[in-house]
Amino acid sequence: MLAPLPKRSDNFSAWYNELVVRSGLAENASVRGCMIIKPYGYAIWEKIQAVFDAAFKKTGHVNAYFPLFIPKSYFSKEASHVEGFAKECAVVTHYRLKTAEDGVSIVVDPTAKLTEELIVRPTSEAIIWSTYKDWIQSYRDLPMLVNQWSNVVRWEMRTRLFLRSTEFLWQEGHTAHATQSEAELEALQMLHLYEDVARDYLALPLIKGLKSQNERFAGAETTYTIEALMQDGKALQAGTSHYLGQRFAKAFDVMFTNRSGLREHVWGTSWGITTRLIGALVMMHADDDGLILPPKIAPIQVVMIPIYKTAIERMAIVEQLTSCQTELVAKGISVKIDDRDTYKPGYKFADYEQKGVPIRVALGPNDLQHQTIELVRRDTKAKKTIPIQNLSEQVEDWLEAIQANIYQRALTLQQQQTLVVDDYATFKELIANQGGFLLAHWDGTTATELKIKEETKATIRCIPLDGVEEEGKCIYTGNPSNRRVIFAQAY
Amino acid sequence: MLAPLPKRSDNFSAWYNELVVRSGLAENASVRGCMIIKPYGYAIWEKIQAVFDAAFKKTGHVNAYFPLFIPKSYFSKEASHVEGFAKECAVVTHYRLKTAEDGVSIVVDPTAKLTEELIVRPTSEAIIWSTYKDWIQSYRDLPMLVNQWSNVVRWEMRTRLFLRSTEFLWQEGHTAHATQSEAELEALQMLHLYEDVARDYLALPLIKGLKSQNERFAGAETTYTIEALMQDGKALQAGTSHYLGQRFAKAFDVMFTNRSGLREHVWGTSWGITTRLIGALVMMHADDDGLILPPKIAPIQVVMIPIYKTAIERMAIVEQLTSCQTELVAKGISVKIDDRDTYKPGYKFADYEQKGVPIRVALGPNDLQHQTIELVRRDTKAKKTIPIQNLSEQVEDWLEAIQANIYQRALTLQQQQTLVVDDYATFKELIANQGGFLLAHWDGTTATELKIKEETKATIRCIPLDGVEEEGKCIYTGNPSNRRVIFAQAY
Repeated sequence: MLAPLPKRSDNFSAWYNELVVRSGLAENASVRGCMIIKPYGYAIWEKIQAVFDAAFKKTGHVNAYFPLFIPKSYFSKEASHVEGFAKECAVVTHYRLKTAEDGVSIVVDPTAKLTEELIVRPTSEAIIWSTYKDWIQSYRDLPMLVNQWSNVVRWEMRTRLFLRSTEFLWQEGHTAHATQSEAELEALQMLHLYEDVARDYLALPLIKGLKSQNERFAGAETTYTIEALMQDGKALQAGTSHYLGQRFAKAFDVMFTNRSGLREHVWGTSWGITTRLIGALVMMHADDDGLILPPKIAPIQVVMIPIYKTAIERMAIVEQLTSCQTELVAKGISVKIDDRDTYKPGYKFADYEQKGVPIRVALGPNDLQHQTIELVRRDTKAKKTIPIQNLSEQVEDWLEAIQANIYQRALTLQQQQTLVVDDYATFKELIANQGGFLLAHWDGTTATELKIKEETKATIRCIPLDGVEEEGKCIYTGNPSNRRVIFAQAY
Repeated sequence: MLAPLPKRSDNFSAWYNELVVRSGLAENASVRGCMIIKPYGYAIWEKIQAVFDAAFKKTGHVNAYFPLFIPKSYFSKEASHVEGFAKECAVVTHYRLKTAEDGVSIVVDPTAKLTEELIVRPTSEAIIWSTYKDWIQSYRDLPMLVNQWSNVVRWEMRTRLFLRSTEFLWQEGHTAHATQSEAELEALQMLHLYEDVARDYLALPLIKGLKSQNERFAGAETTYTIEALMQDGKALQAGTSHYLGQRFAKAFDVMFTNRSGLREHVWGTSWGITTRLIGALVMMHADDDGLILPPKIAPIQVVMIPIYKTAIERMAIVEQLTSCQTELVAKGISVKIDDRDTYKPGYKFADYEQKGVPIRVALGPNDLQHQTIELVRRDTKAKKTIPIQNLSEQVEDWLEAIQANIYQRALTLQQQQTLVVDDYATFKELIANQGGFLLAHWDGTTATELKIKEETKATIRCIPLDGVEEEGKCIYTGNPSNRRVIFAQAY
């Protein structure tokens, strides 16, 4: 049998780390801070890519691919950008190795030193905006709506599978527009798109908001964010969308001739989501027995396990299951039959439970004789035996019900853990003991924000877009405030 | 109007370089040797990925993702592998930059030197086999059938868009098996799969064969290749599949317990295709007017261009085209209506011709009145005016016909340029003046192969799998040979 996982209530962090590895999502690579996305985890990423990519294309975006390497000097062009990123980069300095004098080991060839070092991209604004200079001449070339799916590298000190790693996978949209308002609308459109897709496919309830100046992307005028709340009361930034103003256009001299024949700098946005979303799926939906995947992005929606003693029984049961599989596949449902003879049904049950497969189907000789079949829902563990002929109807019902239920469950938890707080003592006590999204007044200064962070480790996750104007006093300084912001400790 | 391209017959190389840029496929990046895959080129790559990925999955392979960085010491583990790859690698030596003393420029922080340098992957055998050591314990874990879509970096001196660049995109399959014969079969299976998909979707006729020892992948026991012949008579290696024997298993100590309880090293394969295939598409199918894309991987299969003088005409014509588009899209055909008012029809015709869109449709006021519509085939330039009601039938017919015709055309050219040669003088003359695949006898030694290469720049592209045993004499040394091999100059 499978050894049980650590319990969330005992050690949330250990539970997460073990679950990610044991369910086959990812593991730490021998390369410091890097991860290996294992086949099951990668299959989920492919599903996530597919739903977001379709949404990007539907809104007129196209994909392209820009180089991995960025010349060092490009980073100096946008002043705040270099501050935010240049500090944590992998730097390529040489382009050749050679055999060492011992004849066995290999060493860097000192004669193969680059005249200008190359940075492994931590994000691609610099290389893309240096290209847009050539691509954009006239209003007819705008808007430029380009996205890239790629790997990026940020030299992180403390890493965690999916949540923070030296290398990760992501998409980065980079757009250029003829007017400020069009760029502002684009940044907001992509924020809404992220929330819609995350809610409808990943079953993730997210709060949309604005980042404070201190938490803004290095090089942006405005950073929007979608913030998620994990089961342990900590927040996770699940995606960001930046309105860049004309900063990169000015830094890289990207101008266009407008309809009146005048030359102007273009207006930009960038926006991204990463493999971190897989971490959010785990931390929001999973339980002590393993993952609970939303049916719409589960690589396997239904697993079928034959229960048998003899080879003859096995054959008849697998034949019946295969016919059920064909019927479900025709309806667009992904089904795996696990008829391996090298593992017992009990082991398989626990394994697919850990992997979060939404529906488990079992068929034994008795069922076969009565033409019934057993189903178990992963989210509620409800069990049901039904006539085989009703299988596909039942599966379709349940897939829909599971998708809705886990979203609702996560939303309820988020709502329960979102608290209005008006005094700093309570604030500190809540942050220290139970976490959650704390809605509090803030005086709008970075100084206050940093002091609260220093004392409680809580940061301003966002200024919620759907917040209301409300007179109040800053929870820390007592200075006037007209809007609550969300504080939380974050991953 | 568009300026004409250089002619293939005048300067094939200039024709290729200009066409790739002007049709929107790719361009050189400001980063040495790297390319930017532009949206239209990337859309083709997405189509290529989709058809190969589906074929990989159908044959039981799963995708995963391994780190970009490989510790330097890993390369020393497989002796011939390090010889083949370590010479041309991007090396990461530092992980931080800092602001220089001038307060503006940035420099590498000398205190942030890595204790062990990291190599940007030129291929992933080393990192993947170091992982397989943990993933594989028992025969129950086999076969391991993993593929990765990723970017790789090889420090090339002379680069060329798609054909040879410092960074390129590819897929690399890495499999492990319990027996030698299973691994050998896998390497062959993937070779056949490559040829099938390239033929059926990319319309590329390819020759399957074995590489000579000298051209073998660094670390392989056997390298299979698919070789293509370009219109200028030069060869292009379009993909390779390697049988690795137990070399990497031994280098990285990957063992399994077999059914009898004994410990054995596993047997491996690896195989890959790259963005180079886009270069092959251009060089095999395109003409002096531009690309000619196979309908099955063309991002736009049909482009519709309205011809009008007045705004009222435009509205009625676009309305009619939109209804035609809806009908075609419902049949799974991708259709773009280009109703931009900022470009003239003549410009659009030339532009989509250059982009290789298989079918161009034009509709003017006269057509609209008579309910007829004009179609032009990109491959033959045949023009036809038909009743609008027959449009989808005609488009379906033509898409199929174009796919078949361009394959047949490329095959015919390949056959015409494949010549049996029995004396070295003719061989040299053919290679120097017209190129092509030259079928010649070879004595099987690397020495001879290298001398021929030195004197003619022709290399052994492959020992064709469908060649026949035939007694003969080496074209260079006169020593006995029992099989012809294919020589050519190659990209």
